[in-house]
Amino acid sequence: MKFLAAAVQMLAGDDKAANLAEAERWIRAAAAQGARVVALPEVFIWRGVKKLERKNAEAIPGATSDFLSRLARELGIYLLGGSILEEIGGSPKAYNTSLLFDPSGKLLASYRKIHLFDVDLANGVSARESDTRAFGEGIVVAKTELCDMGLSVCYDLRFPELYRTLVAKGARLIFVPSAFTAYTGQAHWETLLRARAIENQVYVIAPDQFGKSPNSFETHGHSMIVDPWGKAIAVLTDGPGIIMAEIDLDYLAKIRAELPALSHRQLN
Amino acid sequence: MKFLAAAVQMLAGDDKAANLAEAERWIRAAAAQGARVVALPEVFIWRGVKKLERKNAEAIPGATSDFLSRLARELGIYLLGGSILEEIGGSPKAYNTSLLFDPSGKLLASYRKIHLFDVDLANGVSARESDTRAFGEGIVVAKTELCDMGLSVCYDLRFPELYRTLVAKGARLIFVPSAFTAYTGQAHWETLLRARAIENQVYVIAPDQFGKSPNSFETHGHSMIVDPWGKAIAVLTDGPGIIMAEIDLDYLAKIRAELPALSHRQLN
Repeated sequence: MKFLAAAVQMLAGDDKAANLAEAERWIRAAAAQGARVVALPEVFIWRGVKKLERKNAEAIPGATSDFLSRLARELGIYLLGGSILEEIGGSPKAYNTSLLFDPSGKLLASYRKIHLFDVDLANGVSARESDTRAFGEGIVVAKTELCDMGLSVCYDLRFPELYRTLVAKGARLIFVPSAFTAYTGQAHWETLLRARAIENQVYVIAPDQFGKSPNSFETHGHSMIVDPWGKAIAVLTDGPGIIMAEIDLDYLAKIRAELPALSHRQLN
Repeated sequence: MKFLAAAVQMLAGDDKAANLAEAERWIRAAAAQGARVVALPEVFIWRGVKKLERKNAEAIPGATSDFLSRLARELGIYLLGGSILEEIGGSPKAYNTSLLFDPSGKLLASYRKIHLFDVDLANGVSARESDTRAFGEGIVVAKTELCDMGLSVCYDLRFPELYRTLVAKGARLIFVPSAFTAYTGQAHWETLLRARAIENQVYVIAPDQFGKSPNSFETHGHSMIVDPWGKAIAVLTDGPGIIMAEIDLDYLAKIRAELPALSHRQLN
């Protein structure tokens, strides 16, 4: 089984209509080139100042998820809405939620980011994600006709134990939609994405935001698709656009047969 | 707290006296340059054909461990004997055991490799480590006056859960003595070493064997010391020799304070 997958790189601002229009343009371009899986980055639909976060959170289903559902169905693709902020009734906080739609437009899986980014970096980047967002809890693997797909978001990438569980639950492709800081991205992004692919012998699809945001920290770009041997088979360093690569599940099976590290686990 | 650490790169054959003489030369050179911690690679003392493995295994304490003990005491250093094959009474197999001596010559810690390398790689490398070696079970962190040090060996590197436990038990420096294949090393060695350092915010000291062995597969070299931000601060690509780097525990503390990912773990 082989199929094409695409990752969209974009810089979202606080104008939802503009973000949605840009996302749609890239999704249509990827589908036109044959992608059967298209993934958008974290908070692709809105990235603004903190005090407006809650106001811009949405219900699921809601306007943005309906839009993604219609587009997935129209184009006949698996579509990952990297994340949108999800309203929590009665709470001042929102979940940072990633949504996967199937080619019929059905919401196949919904993952609420488990690890929130609360840091004070030397270069002045200060992020207190948990000020405005609530911690997710469930680990999510979606069964699809292509292969099982694991969901994660951005800062989750630093926690190898999440990926071990996704793979133990059957994932052969894992999404890491991100808005990764430029500062930490330069030092850690590629290494961690490739390590997750190598140690788990899976495909990793990591659409990232890029560049200077008017409302938040600078993001790293370098959206990437990594194969199960750890090779970055598609990269977009900077600027908006799409990357595409072939997902080859026979190649994945060959890697796992030659180097059966997953069956050599001795520890939990 | 700052101190110098060294890793020895060498290619061991099946002549124990020659291997020991070479190891001693490099250990003395590192100590003369001020290293307080010196680490030798996996199976530095003997690397021969499989049918002679059991015969060349040793008791601990025994000849090689006594030698290391004396040298550690004479030079006043922490000395890691990357690994020797350890006799198991009544068994045709041996443990692949890494030994850490303190500056008084005391055997501070002994770690029996948990993950054994049983693979058949596309390039013709076939290794069936468990044919001749038994699986270790205990996870080992040694308390020292410098810092807590975690022990691992070579193929263990592919199993992030081991390193999570070493760090949870207090390790701030982790050894990965290796005889890593050239084929997999080129694709995975640096990425996995740097990932373990990044995700665990620890120093990683990885002395490797290098080059073509007359008795076994070609090894990758590229012995490396990685800092807790994931930077390779010392590398020896090829050939025999030593690398040295400063281990700065204040820098480690700063990294952990700025980006407190270890305290953000949500999953086991």
